[in-house]
Amino acid sequence: AFTRGLKTVTLIPGDGIGPEISVAVMKIFEAAKTPIQWEERKVTAIQGPGGRWIIPPDCKESMDRNLIGLKGPLKTPIAAGHPSMNLLLRKTFDLYANVRPCVSIEGYKTPYTDVDLVTIRENTEGEYSGIEHIIVDGVVQSIKLITEDASRRIAEYAFEYARNNQRNSVTAVHKANIMRMSDGLFLRKCREVAENFKDIKFTEMYLDTVCLNMVQDPTQFDVLVMPNLYGDILSDLCAGLIGGLGVTPSGNIGANGVAIFESVHGTAPDIAGLDLANPTALLLSAVMMLRHMGMHDYGQRIETACFNTIRDKKVLTGDLGGKSKCSEFTEEICNRVKDTD
Amino acid sequence: AFTRGLKTVTLIPGDGIGPEISVAVMKIFEAAKTPIQWEERKVTAIQGPGGRWIIPPDCKESMDRNLIGLKGPLKTPIAAGHPSMNLLLRKTFDLYANVRPCVSIEGYKTPYTDVDLVTIRENTEGEYSGIEHIIVDGVVQSIKLITEDASRRIAEYAFEYARNNQRNSVTAVHKANIMRMSDGLFLRKCREVAENFKDIKFTEMYLDTVCLNMVQDPTQFDVLVMPNLYGDILSDLCAGLIGGLGVTPSGNIGANGVAIFESVHGTAPDIAGLDLANPTALLLSAVMMLRHMGMHDYGQRIETACFNTIRDKKVLTGDLGGKSKCSEFTEEICNRVKDTD
Ligand SMILES: CC(C)[C@H](C(=O)O)[C@@H](O)C(=O)O
Ligand SMILES: CC(C)[C@H](C(=O)O)[C@@H](O)C(=O)O
Repeated sequence: AFTRGLKTVTLIPGDGIGPEISVAVMKIFEAAKTPIQWEERKVTAIQGPGGRWIIPPDCKESMDRNLIGLKGPLKTPIAAGHPSMNLLLRKTFDLYANVRPCVSIEGYKTPYTDVDLVTIRENTEGEYSGIEHIIVDGVVQSIKLITEDASRRIAEYAFEYARNNQRNSVTAVHKANIMRMSDGLFLRKCREVAENFKDIKFTEMYLDTVCLNMVQDPTQFDVLVMPNLYGDILSDLCAGLIGGLGVTPSGNIGANGVAIFESVHGTAPDIAGLDLANPTALLLSAVMMLRHMGMHDYGQRIETACFNTIRDKKVLTGDLGGKSKCSEFTEEICNRVKDTD
Repeated sequence: AFTRGLKTVTLIPGDGIGPEISVAVMKIFEAAKTPIQWEERKVTAIQGPGGRWIIPPDCKESMDRNLIGLKGPLKTPIAAGHPSMNLLLRKTFDLYANVRPCVSIEGYKTPYTDVDLVTIRENTEGEYSGIEHIIVDGVVQSIKLITEDASRRIAEYAFEYARNNQRNSVTAVHKANIMRMSDGLFLRKCREVAENFKDIKFTEMYLDTVCLNMVQDPTQFDVLVMPNLYGDILSDLCAGLIGGLGVTPSGNIGANGVAIFESVHGTAPDIAGLDLANPTALLLSAVMMLRHMGMHDYGQRIETACFNTIRDKKVLTGDLGGKSKCSEFTEEICNRVKDTD
C-alpha cells in the first residue's frame, strides 16, 4: 500500500464537519499531485492501564511512524474527568510550540488590513498544568507551572522561526509585573535567547498592552511568543482580526520533526454532512504542513489557489459570504491548482 | 475648611501628568458648581511596621473618612519587592469590583461603532494572589486563588450593576474547560447568582471565544464579569476598541460605599508639565464617581460637555487628533458646562 517516493501523513479527520473538510483537502492535494499519502486514524479517548486517558494505540503508532499529522476538529468530551482530546494529543507527542500565522486575506473584508503576524504559544505547561486543589471548602487553587526548560525551548523556537521565515522582530508577551516569579522566569529566558539572535529585534510587552495595541494597530506586531494561556487568548483574538477560525491555520510542533497541523474551529455539528463547511482552515494548516516538510512549491501553489478563489469571490462557502457548497469551493481550488501545474 | 452641604472626596493627583489632569477635573467640577470639595493626598508607598508596604497613613485616614477617592496615574515603582501602588490601593480598601464601561465616542473614529459594554473584573484574587514559589531550580509555580465568597460577591455586583443600569445581559468569561476547579467554582457562583436575577439574561463564554467575538462584533456584548487577570486583559482590549486608555473611565468599588475612581493610562512623563495631556479619562472617571454618589445630573452635564467637545473636533488635545493644550480643552468643557447651568 505504500508507494515509493510518497511521504505518509497521519490524517485525523475528526468529528462533525471534520470528515468532509478532510476529503476536500485530500482532493486538492491530489489535484496538485502532492507526493503525500494519507493514513487515516480515528481519535476518541480511551482509558488505558490504570484508568489513564490515552489516545488510541493505532493512532499513536501511526504518528510515531509518520511523525506528521493533519487533524480536523474533535468534539470536546463532556464527561467529568475526561480530558480535551486536543490537549491530550499535544501532551502525548510533546508538541511544545503552537504556531498560528495570522495574515489578512485579500478580498475577505474585516476592520483590519495588512495584518501579518504569528503567535507562538508555549503548549505544554503554564495555566494548562492541570494541577488544582481545594484548600478548604470554597477556596480553590490552580497552579500555573513555568519551567526554565520549556521557556527556553519556546523562546528558541520563536527566534528560529523568525529567522527562518524572514521576520524581523519577536515580542515576548507577559505579566511579569504581577506574576514576578513565573512570568519573570519566562521573560528572563526570552531575554537570554534574544542575545543569541542579534539579527532579530526583541521587545517585551504586557499582555494587556498587547491586546490594546493589537486592536488599535495590529500591523505593529510580527512574531509574538508567550506562555500557554496568553497564547490561547491572543491567537483567537488575532484570528478574529483576519476573519476568524474558519480561515486561520495552526501547527503544533514538537522535537525531532514531530508535528500535528490542525484547524482550530469547532465541529459545527449543525451543518455536518450537508456539504456546507468551509475547508479553508484545514487546507491552510495542510499548507503549513507542506512547508514544514520542505515541500514549499506544493504549499505555495495550493495556498495561491485558495487565496485567489477567496479573492475572486465567485465560488465561496456560506461563512465566507457566498452560496457555494464545500464540494464546489473545493473543485474551484482544484481547477486553479491544476492550471498552475 | 469644610463647607456645609459639600461632599468631600479624597483626590490622589498622582505622578507625571496626574497633577495637571487633576487640575483640569477640578476646574470643570467648579464650572459645573458640583457640590464636591477635594482633599488632596500624595501616594507613595512607605514601609510600615515589620517592613510591610503600606500607603501613607494620611491618605488611608482621608479615604476612611471620605469613602470616595479620585485618582490619577501613579508611577510603578521599579525596586524589587516593591508593590504596584494601584494594587496596594485596591487591596487596602478591599475594592473588589473593577468596573470599566466602554462606549463608542461620537466623533472619535476607530474601526468600531456602537460599542456599549461594561467589563466587571474581580479585583482581589485570582492570578493576582501574589503567591509564588520556586519548587526546584528552574521550576516555578504561581498560584491562582479563587474563592467562593469573592466569586459570589463579584457575580452579585455584576447582576446588580446590570439591573441598576438598565442593561440586559451578563456574560461570565472563563476557562473552566482548562481550570476546571478554579474557574469552575467562579462559573458555578455566577450561575447560582443568575438564578436570582431572572430579569437579566445570563450567558457563559470562554475567554478566547470572547476575544475573538469581541474584535469581530463588540456590539453583541453588554455586561461581562470575570476573574482578575481576564478582566485586566479584556478591559484593555475593549478600551482599544473605542480609542484607548486616554478616553476610558474606571472605578474600583468596595463594600459600604467605598470606591476609588481612576484613569488607568500611564503617567506620560515625556509630556508631564507641558500642558499637553488629555484629561478625558480622569474626567469620565470623575463622572462615574458622581453617579456612584447619586449626583446623576452633575455627572450628565459634565459628560455631555466632554463628549460634545470631542464630537465637535474644534478644541482637542494632541492624542485626540487636535492641537489644543490641556488647559484649552478644559476651558472649552468648562464653557459648555456653564452653558447648561
Ligand atoms: C479546545 C481547547 C482546549 C483549546 C485550548 O484552550 O487550548 C483551544 O481553545 C485551542 O486554542 O486550541
Ligand atoms: C498597573 C497594573 C498592576 C494593573 C493591573 O495589571 O491590574 C493595570 O494593568 C490595570 O489594569 O489596572
